Amino acid sequence: MVTTSYSANIYPLSNYSFGSKEPKMEKDTSVADRLARMKVNYMKEGMRTSVEAILLVQEHNHPHILLLQIGNTFCKLPGGRLKPGENEIEGLKRKLTSKLGANNPGVVPDWQIGECVAVWWRPNFETTMYPYCPPHITKPKECKKLFLVHLSEREYFAVPKNLKLLAVPLFELYDNVQRYGPVISTIPQQLSRFHFNMVTQ
Amino acid sequence: MVTTSYSANIYPLSNYSFGSKEPKMEKDTSVADRLARMKVNYMKEGMRTSVEAILLVQEHNHPHILLLQIGNTFCKLPGGRLKPGENEIEGLKRKLTSKLGANNPGVVPDWQIGECVAVWWRPNFETTMYPYCPPHITKPKECKKLFLVHLSEREYFAVPKNLKLLAVPLFELYDNVQRYGPVISTIPQQLSRFHFNMVTQ
Repeated sequence: MVTTSYSANIYPLSNYSFGSKEPKMEKDTSVADRLARMKVNYMKEGMRTSVEAILLVQEHNHPHILLLQIGNTFCKLPGGRLKPGENEIEGLKRKLTSKLGANNPGVVPDWQIGECVAVWWRPNFETTMYPYCPPHITKPKECKKLFLVHLSEREYFAVPKNLKLLAVPLFELYDNVQRYGPVISTIPQQLSRFHFNMVTQ
Repeated sequence: MVTTSYSANIYPLSNYSFGSKEPKMEKDTSVADRLARMKVNYMKEGMRTSVEAILLVQEHNHPHILLLQIGNTFCKLPGGRLKPGENEIEGLKRKLTSKLGANNPGVVPDWQIGECVAVWWRPNFETTMYPYCPPHITKPKECKKLFLVHLSEREYFAVPKNLKLLAVPLFELYDNVQRYGPVISTIPQQLSRFHFNMVTQ
């Protein structure tokens, strides 16, 4: 297969409207709690599979990614854990609606799940993840997949009251592992092969 | 378009054989010389387009990338600059044959140029590159594209006498910008979406 370029339309941030809805609290209040819960779930269900969305908008002719901010510092991509056996595309749509869809099903965005752009592996019940399954690891504990999600020209997002939705430019994410962690800070490199049509209006 | 996985076969390093050929000297002996030559060429021909290859082999069930080492420390991907107007796929084949093909055209590998996995931009006549064209840069000086090249089960490579060809594991490249620079050290993240079939024999 020879494919040398991929393209996607990106619309201005001002095309989208934002409201709020009931809080979506984090299930864990500490990293230790989170890893402990992960271990319990692994014993019951095996390897965790999670799916996350890269939602793009543009401002000043530069791509921005929508991130959910919890508290004052921690940012994450919208998404979450699949149910055992759940299809990853359907599961990501379910998670996006839960995180950003209005409570009225009639106005939930028609999520267009696009290309898988990255896959990360968690070898142990620890915070460290790698963009490959390390040698000698036969039973990874989590596989996380990032998908490009193609937004329509206009959408309404309902943001849980305890979270903030930020549009962060690629140049802010790039080489900023301290602020955004290894997964989010290398999204610019993973998107570099795409040609983005910056639709302005 | 929904594409959730890509796959590629990777064969053992021991499937490939290596010989040597006449040296391919670097055109520049310093970074300053290189940037000066880049400027001269830009005036004549406009933006430089370069193409580089990611050639994969496996050892110990883990993917390794073939890098050319110059001297004792500097590593680069095989590839180079396109001629003005040259097709990028044909240009990459030409460069790969120049760098790694035998002098006998009958035994030159049948280079299968695959997916573009990353695009880097040089905004100025400086060493810094970014995985996007920075805002406000209307005339970038170079665009560098990295392609996955699918190797056949067996091949013969002829390595220029002044260079060493190394097979470097993904886990060595990952998070090692100090040793390999920003372009090569994030190849593991760019390849993470691929499923590699580790062919053993």
